Amino acid sequence: MALRHFTIEMEELNELLLRMGALVESSIRRSVQSLVDRDKELAKAVLRDEPTINQMQVEVDARATRVLALNQPVARDLRFLTATLKINTDLERMGDLAVNIAERTIALLNRPPVKPLEDIPKMASLVQDMLLKSLDAFVKVDAELAQTICPADNEVDALRDKVYTELVEFMQRDPATVPAAVDLIFVARNLERIADHATNIAEDVIFLAKGVDFRRAVAPAPRV
Amino acid sequence: MALRHFTIEMEELNELLLRMGALVESSIRRSVQSLVDRDKELAKAVLRDEPTINQMQVEVDARATRVLALNQPVARDLRFLTATLKINTDLERMGDLAVNIAERTIALLNRPPVKPLEDIPKMASLVQDMLLKSLDAFVKVDAELAQTICPADNEVDALRDKVYTELVEFMQRDPATVPAAVDLIFVARNLERIADHATNIAEDVIFLAKGVDFRRAVAPAPRV
Repeated sequence: MALRHFTIEMEELNELLLRMGALVESSIRRSVQSLVDRDKELAKAVLRDEPTINQMQVEVDARATRVLALNQPVARDLRFLTATLKINTDLERMGDLAVNIAERTIALLNRPPVKPLEDIPKMASLVQDMLLKSLDAFVKVDAELAQTICPADNEVDALRDKVYTELVEFMQRDPATVPAAVDLIFVARNLERIADHATNIAEDVIFLAKGVDFRRAVAPAPRV
Repeated sequence: MALRHFTIEMEELNELLLRMGALVESSIRRSVQSLVDRDKELAKAVLRDEPTINQMQVEVDARATRVLALNQPVARDLRFLTATLKINTDLERMGDLAVNIAERTIALLNRPPVKPLEDIPKMASLVQDMLLKSLDAFVKVDAELAQTICPADNEVDALRDKVYTELVEFMQRDPATVPAAVDLIFVARNLERIADHATNIAEDVIFLAKGVDFRRAVAPAPRV
């Protein structure tokens, strides 16, 4: 494979991963929107997009492995490709978690609302922002930007604890709310896990930006 | 790197991954045992092993990436290395889930038991078996063995649903059981997720056993 072809392959791979990221972000946004608006059709639209996300994952994996096999890249290109494989897995799992939220939404629509939702939409907007920032940091290989994601992860964790405590109180006060409240606790937990995956991506970017050159680490260049 | 050295590197990598798998399996077993026996010390032992599992993950990642960089393997060796990177991620997450179970156990010890535990230990023994079989299938690159794992995954899902339904009834009957029952629902959910990761490993083995040779797929060997 010629160098020009290699560059094009890497750019296409990058683009595909970003398109996948955009779809995953949209799934997260719509899954929580469907919960807030009690909109079954929107929740179903998230379920319909799952196969597309899975297909994209398979394609990113296949392309990255093919580029590895055909070009045997080293140093930064190799780190970019292994980071791509990992980010790919994280994105696919975030997509799964959005699907979980959409499924909980559909279940919840058979039950009266427990309480007005405030903290769950807050969590959702935080995790969407984390995902977009982590992908932006990946494109720019910007470790500093990647590092700004951690405080949001702590905020998400704190909101999850708040949601949990409130819902346990609701269940104890009114047993009829139990199934719906358990579903909402899981939604909060899924959002927290999405935040964890965004944090994984940020950590991969930091490694990508600062990683060692394995070839050089093992066989140092001769002194000039 | 000479061929002999390459073979040794691959064997060492394999061995390290299996040692990690054994420790993860032990963490899963001990986390559920600590819950059943209400044994805080055993739960704490699981927490203490988490850094070791994380270190092993970092080492597997570093070694696999180094072997990729220095040997630029193709075909089966390349697929083995990308499978190793994926299995490594799955094992580390299974370790995290065992830690979650141990943390829930420690929280649960402050509360009276909700009910005798039957299905959760059943789920645990199924997922341990799935993990051991999937790793065995990996070592033997045995797609047939890998395929035997799927029925157990369905069994685990069915048990999770049963645990959920029973615990919702408990919470509705007796609000005092709510926090403990929510914790137990999460334990069942964590075990189900461990089963999903074991299934991922089995799927990687199937790909590894049947995967195409990318080099050959793109540049066919000349006819003889």
